[in-house]
Amino acid sequence: MPPVAPRSGDAIFASVERVNAELFTLTYGAIVRQLLTDLEEVEEVNKQLDQMGYNIGIRLIDEFLAKSNVSGCVNFKETADVIAKVAFKMFLGVTATVTNWDSEGTTCSLVLEDNPMVDFVELPDTCQGLFYCNILSGVIRGALEMVSMKTEVTWIRDMLRGDDAFEMQVKLLKQVPEEYPYKDDE
Amino acid sequence: MPPVAPRSGDAIFASVERVNAELFTLTYGAIVRQLLTDLEEVEEVNKQLDQMGYNIGIRLIDEFLAKSNVSGCVNFKETADVIAKVAFKMFLGVTATVTNWDSEGTTCSLVLEDNPMVDFVELPDTCQGLFYCNILSGVIRGALEMVSMKTEVTWIRDMLRGDDAFEMQVKLLKQVPEEYPYKDDE
Repeated sequence: MPPVAPRSGDAIFASVERVNAELFTLTYGAIVRQLLTDLEEVEEVNKQLDQMGYNIGIRLIDEFLAKSNVSGCVNFKETADVIAKVAFKMFLGVTATVTNWDSEGTTCSLVLEDNPMVDFVELPDTCQGLFYCNILSGVIRGALEMVSMKTEVTWIRDMLRGDDAFEMQVKLLKQVPEEYPYKDDE
Repeated sequence: MPPVAPRSGDAIFASVERVNAELFTLTYGAIVRQLLTDLEEVEEVNKQLDQMGYNIGIRLIDEFLAKSNVSGCVNFKETADVIAKVAFKMFLGVTATVTNWDSEGTTCSLVLEDNPMVDFVELPDTCQGLFYCNILSGVIRGALEMVSMKTEVTWIRDMLRGDDAFEMQVKLLKQVPEEYPYKDDE
């Protein structure tokens, strides 16, 4: 059987079930507000958002692989492109740019100029250390771990902190080769 | 100028920005789990979800009125229909049925047979008292309050508790007539 071509982010996004973006934005805002109230320390909120994202990522990867026809990326470069062009489009309706590769090809940045998560959001002065979108970096970390890539994801630029875009640095720490218990033609 | 006809839920849903439903479902699940961990008492979680929903509802109503061309419903019956057919479609992508009216026309039920918020959700035995979708009843309560209808919204049926549908009872407690500071043609 010839391999099935991966589907474009646009095509997948048009075909999956969706909900209103503002409902999502406000719901996410409610989580962050809740955590700020409950945990008090901004640093703890960042940690918790990252952990929530991780838990979401390890589940969301299944939906992604099922809907996208992407079947295991050969290398980290290809993976970064798929996240930026297909996964972001499929889940948030926007695409990211991959840039700032290091010479080893193990660290790059994903840049988002448009991010529906932060529509209408303004951070009060008391939340200066908050990484509002930390759930997103957690999702990527969790999803990549399920395809055997251990990564560290950190925010370099943040529009809520006055930067001109969102920039997430993704650093590949370790890649465990996948072992298949079966052969492809079986 | 002739009045603009209200738009159908389908048309609006097709035109607004959206995100992937599974991302929303998992994100909402993360909130509920977080609240269960932080608050311990299921009753407190119900209250908190309702309050979060209320806060979302008082903001979401603006988006709804702006996008739907619905301009103030004359009576509660009409309002219930608009929530069921236009608002649910616009935000969650599903429609509800309005039923079980009382003889005074001040209490009715909104029935959802399909609810993207609960995809893949199963409640453990320790959460039997939880109204998982309580944020939704809060949203409706908050949104209606902004159009001068004070309501009480309670869950009558819940698929996560083994019922065959979700049923929310909406009871109109008080309707404050809106006072316009300006005339329509000005």
